[in-house]
Amino acid sequence: MALQKLSHMDELISNRIKESFSKQGFMETLGAEIILIEKGKVIIQCPFHSKLSQQNDFFHAGVMTSIVDSACGYAAYTMMPNQSDVLTVEFKINFLKPANTNNIYAIGTVIQAGRKLVICDGIVTNEKQDKVFAKMTATLITINK
Amino acid sequence: MALQKLSHMDELISNRIKESFSKQGFMETLGAEIILIEKGKVIIQCPFHSKLSQQNDFFHAGVMTSIVDSACGYAAYTMMPNQSDVLTVEFKINFLKPANTNNIYAIGTVIQAGRKLVICDGIVTNEKQDKVFAKMTATLITINK
Amino acid sequence: MALQKLSHMDELISNRIKESFSKQGFMETLGAEIILIEKGKVIIQCPFHSKLSQQNDFFHAGVMTSIVDSACGYAAYTMMPNQSDVLTVEFKINFLKPANTNNIYAIGTVIQAGRKLVICDGIVTNEKQDKVFAKMTATLITINK
Amino acid sequence: MALQKLSHMDELISNRIKESFSKQGFMETLGAEIILIEKGKVIIQCPFHSKLSQQNDFFHAGVMTSIVDSACGYAAYTMMPNQSDVLTVEFKINFLKPANTNNIYAIGTVIQAGRKLVICDGIVTNEKQDKVFAKMTATLITINK
Repeated sequence: MALQKLSHMDELISNRIKESFSKQGFMETLGAEIILIEKGKVIIQCPFHSKLSQQNDFFHAGVMTSIVDSACGYAAYTMMPNQSDVLTVEFKINFLKPANTNNIYAIGTVIQAGRKLVICDGIVTNEKQDKVFAKMTATLITINK
Repeated sequence: MALQKLSHMDELISNRIKESFSKQGFMETLGAEIILIEKGKVIIQCPFHSKLSQQNDFFHAGVMTSIVDSACGYAAYTMMPNQSDVLTVEFKINFLKPANTNNIYAIGTVIQAGRKLVICDGIVTNEKQDKVFAKMTATLITINK
Repeated sequence: MALQKLSHMDELISNRIKESFSKQGFMETLGAEIILIEKGKVIIQCPFHSKLSQQNDFFHAGVMTSIVDSACGYAAYTMMPNQSDVLTVEFKINFLKPANTNNIYAIGTVIQAGRKLVICDGIVTNEKQDKVFAKMTATLITINK
Repeated sequence: MALQKLSHMDELISNRIKESFSKQGFMETLGAEIILIEKGKVIIQCPFHSKLSQQNDFFHAGVMTSIVDSACGYAAYTMMPNQSDVLTVEFKINFLKPANTNNIYAIGTVIQAGRKLVICDGIVTNEKQDKVFAKMTATLITINK
């Protein structure tokens, strides 16, 4: 997966997402970065660091979960009117393989956007996208600010 | 919730859990600490820090998820024979309230321990345990080392 | 678990639930009956019949799931204003034990009721309530009619 | 979706699945039929009948859940050695649209088959496969008979 430039979709939404992301102290702690924003799809990259490890020195499940939850949240955000915010109601995640790799990529994709609820699929994969480390389904709700 | 001393249950299991926990770079990054280990139950505490925040400066959902996943994992671990390890197969988590508090406590409790699989309930709560911020059900598997 | 009389709570809500339940052809097909309606809690009973079996002649997982989903749905319904309807957004269920028993009881309990969303816990148990066959967490949404 | 003939894959597995399915009294009660068995994939069809309805006379969520759980279970079964059985550990299902259609089709697909655990995706769709009514992720375990 080559590092992709942000598309020229809605600059407004893209800027709001980048601004929101920059306010998340935790994403900075993880060293995570948004590398793609499209209508209905967001990709977040996170390089390995020993401060992100579990006991066997792979990516901690909590790190994978955190970035794919964010990717789903921002994917939902691309579908929403300007004055709305989005909250994760719940998600389920299956861990399929240990993430012993240098970089993980979380891909969040909207599969249904209703008036109040948005349902997203998320995966955590490697650069080549030939391994899926984890797989999420998330339910999000729009909040009028 | 007063900081509770580790019980005198199986010192061996307790020591193995503390050793495993100390190898998780990510738990140190979060500033998380185990404050209770009992047969079938583990509590992890995590103080707020801006590096753990989401965009509204509360605890990030990923932080809550990470510590309650660990609490469930170590709760499962207390049920296992010595030469086993434990992996999270999957979990589902509902986020019930924003975690605008100084400390969060993740309580993992075993609800069924089979030969291969262990099912745990997890909650993320405040010190008084009068608010539940998030609620998890997790499936874990034992691995013979 | 003795068959419990319906409580004298809100007769209106209770009647609306019984009317809705009676319109569900599938609940009649299962032979399921509501045996308790309280604010935030509903219990549904279902006797075993070979037409409800899986391949080993126990209750089919789908039967357990169907009645506990209904119990959660009607538990949510007890919390709602009169002109609302309720839909299941999603649920997760763990199957803990084979249900080799004469009657199963599904207990749905509201754990959080917000303006739009209601979160419920559900269990499927036996008459003595000393075995839990399955455990659900469900998210429901209110719809204004 | 034209009614598809059973493929000529492993006749042995296919026959074992059909035999197991025929023992499930509940599948007969639903009027469900297996219409495709392939390595890692099973499709079950279910025609609408008022005995399968919810209160608005669409397919009951419990019916959709029951057949897609079975489709996932038998999809897992196609991956297993002969002397094994398969049990559903847990699943999560999101309901995306009301199923107001004459026939529903549940498609279960294996996404990872390990030594003990199999993870499946399931969807419930219409004949043209242009609407997804529900979406499941399921975890199953193999049991040596």
